[in-house]
Amino acid sequence: MSTRPGGRSARIRDAVLEAVHAELVDRGYLGMTVENVADRAGVHKTTVYRRWGTVDVLIADALDRGRDVAWTAPDTGSAEGDLIALAHEVVDTFTDPVRSRVPIALVAAALQSSRARQAKHDYYAARHAAAAGIVERAVERGELPPRTDPAELVRQTCAPLFYRVFVSGEPLDRATGERAARAALAAARAGVL
Amino acid sequence: MSTRPGGRSARIRDAVLEAVHAELVDRGYLGMTVENVADRAGVHKTTVYRRWGTVDVLIADALDRGRDVAWTAPDTGSAEGDLIALAHEVVDTFTDPVRSRVPIALVAAALQSSRARQAKHDYYAARHAAAAGIVERAVERGELPPRTDPAELVRQTCAPLFYRVFVSGEPLDRATGERAARAALAAARAGVL
Repeated sequence: MSTRPGGRSARIRDAVLEAVHAELVDRGYLGMTVENVADRAGVHKTTVYRRWGTVDVLIADALDRGRDVAWTAPDTGSAEGDLIALAHEVVDTFTDPVRSRVPIALVAAALQSSRARQAKHDYYAARHAAAAGIVERAVERGELPPRTDPAELVRQTCAPLFYRVFVSGEPLDRATGERAARAALAAARAGVL
Repeated sequence: MSTRPGGRSARIRDAVLEAVHAELVDRGYLGMTVENVADRAGVHKTTVYRRWGTVDVLIADALDRGRDVAWTAPDTGSAEGDLIALAHEVVDTFTDPVRSRVPIALVAAALQSSRARQAKHDYYAARHAAAAGIVERAVERGELPPRTDPAELVRQTCAPLFYRVFVSGEPLDRATGERAARAALAAARAGVL
């Protein structure tokens, strides 16, 4: 079976992983089945079973594909602007009742499945790496100490927002995102990160 | 039925909620059933069904009881010491393979059940309030600006640790906890919190 881009196998994967995304939005992790994904993708369910096997492998493959999709970190001309833009991306995702369902379903999947957990880990590691330019540019401009850890600055910016969603269950808004960005920046300027 | 402390009803509740805790440790949220909780508690399952009805209500009641158990914030004599002690509590819980199962199961339950979500929200709100003394004492000692938001300082200290557990899937250790505490403190000193 061909796996080249645009080949039949690649087209099947695209259709199936689009269906995974749509099923996560519509039903969430616990409501997903291989049959529903196959139906929605218009692919025979034995094909999906043979190639992916389980819902967890489907979710992990969707995450792997998401990891490979180009994502560019904000580049606004200042570290504060970049971190606020990054925080706004997180806030805008989680305050959208439809878009928020996918990351919420992925956290739920990772709590149950080691394969989904590994894929989620790799996805966030790729995002941390992709955001490193924010710190590199800020160090070049003299805004941050040269030894600032780029991944840690990204974690510090995003963590208070995810904490509200998954731990304390408190609401998010853009002002909350701005405060998280400024708090991370203050810690980085103090040389703690 | 009596609900006074030490009465039959209170003893049943204690036994059942102890069993909920033990079942969360042994089987996690998705493996829990009302029957298993009743068996473990030595209570007839119709009693558990009549009083609680579902696993989600059992988990929410266990959280409500956890919220009412006295928890005292660290009081080491300095804001840095208090926040590091708080971060160490979180790290020590999540690096213990048995103790970590309960908060992980509670996050999973809250992703599926609005009743568990509300109980978890109330639990963390109570913890944030109980930790406010850390900030009050630090302000009195002149360590922090008078307008520092106590709950926000607690969120900032704990959020990077929960982010590693539930979002990025990265390991935790005590040094990570200390960095999170110092980052939160730097942000508070800069007047951002």
